[in-house]
Amino acid sequence: MKSYRKELWFNIPGRRAFINITDEVEGCLKDSGIREGLILVNAMHITASVFINDDESGLHRDYDQWLEKLAPHEPVSQYLHNRTGEDNGDAHLKRQIMGREVVVAVSGGKLDFGPWEQIFYGEFDGGRKKRILVKIIGE
Amino acid sequence: MKSYRKELWFNIPGRRAFINITDEVEGCLKDSGIREGLILVNAMHITASVFINDDESGLHRDYDQWLEKLAPHEPVSQYLHNRTGEDNGDAHLKRQIMGREVVVAVSGGKLDFGPWEQIFYGEFDGGRKKRILVKIIGE
Amino acid sequence: MKSYRKELWFNIPGRRAFINITDEVEGCLKDSGIREGLILVNAMHITASVFINDDESGLHRDYDQWLEKLAPHEPVSQYLHNRTGEDNGDAHLKRQIMGREVVVAVSGGKLDFGPWEQIFYGEFDGGRKKRILVKIIGE
Repeated sequence: MKSYRKELWFNIPGRRAFINITDEVEGCLKDSGIREGLILVNAMHITASVFINDDESGLHRDYDQWLEKLAPHEPVSQYLHNRTGEDNGDAHLKRQIMGREVVVAVSGGKLDFGPWEQIFYGEFDGGRKKRILVKIIGE
Repeated sequence: MKSYRKELWFNIPGRRAFINITDEVEGCLKDSGIREGLILVNAMHITASVFINDDESGLHRDYDQWLEKLAPHEPVSQYLHNRTGEDNGDAHLKRQIMGREVVVAVSGGKLDFGPWEQIFYGEFDGGRKKRILVKIIGE
Repeated sequence: MKSYRKELWFNIPGRRAFINITDEVEGCLKDSGIREGLILVNAMHITASVFINDDESGLHRDYDQWLEKLAPHEPVSQYLHNRTGEDNGDAHLKRQIMGREVVVAVSGGKLDFGPWEQIFYGEFDGGRKKRILVKIIGE
């Protein structure tokens, strides 16, 4: 069994964004030389997500508005978590909806994807350096 | 390390449905000959889910009504995504709540499940052929 | 390839709670002797979650209030599932938001975590013995 590990770093200027990371993950897979196995891609921070969906800008704005409705940022005083001095209580909730991680099959040396699947980093509390982990195991 | 791959195809007549796929996934596991490892089962489409819960028809109707409340199909004009000509903006949101994939342990050649765990395909934008992926790695 | 399996049991006195299980999972990893691979930690019951987030009591109360808003326990008659004689319809919904499972990378014999990541058992229908599964594969 082979294994491969890499961290990918981000520094999103605003509070929230969705970034397509499919090419970077494919680059990791190529580097690993693994042809059959599983890839785990996970946020290493607890106010960010990794998820798979469509690379369509209207949809991303729909996600942003929907998450803001389900877990609004303002007023920050509505979250007990923010009594610690943070203002990111909403980001911890949004991340649970969108998920921490994806696991993707590796078949024939490729990400084994359906026609529209793309991997995204979802940032809900940006403005600083944060990272995700790519771990691949297989042969 | 052994690996196994199979696609399962669906063509749901209506817009939404939950289909129990536990037997098909168990069939894949038997075919694979793998006794210890992990199974990944994921939707290959971005308006569908694979999830684990109870095979109880009342619960499935509860899920449907709840998802419709959290991310209503109508009016379709409420989703920017639908400006692309689609009417499935809601389906992309519902799928995030229910999840893309499950990872299940394989122990002694069986799905390592608690007493009520069953695997479901969740369709949120049916009426056409769609598929899921079963990938198994182990020994 | 090595594999390791262990069940962790819980008996939460009230209806809902979040329990930090990071130390128990780390203990499993140590027992397994696996240095590179993947850990799957999943609820074996369908009204409970395993998730990764922050060990901060204010945040946990925020989660509880938020889940109660998205899928209220009362009135129990609002859920068709409860016509089976159960009163836990809400717990099946809450568990979908928080997730069934996490997959964590194992690197150099350790849980490959970011600075604040901790693993939690989320109970939404307590008052009886329930369990989670820890499955590790790797080398």
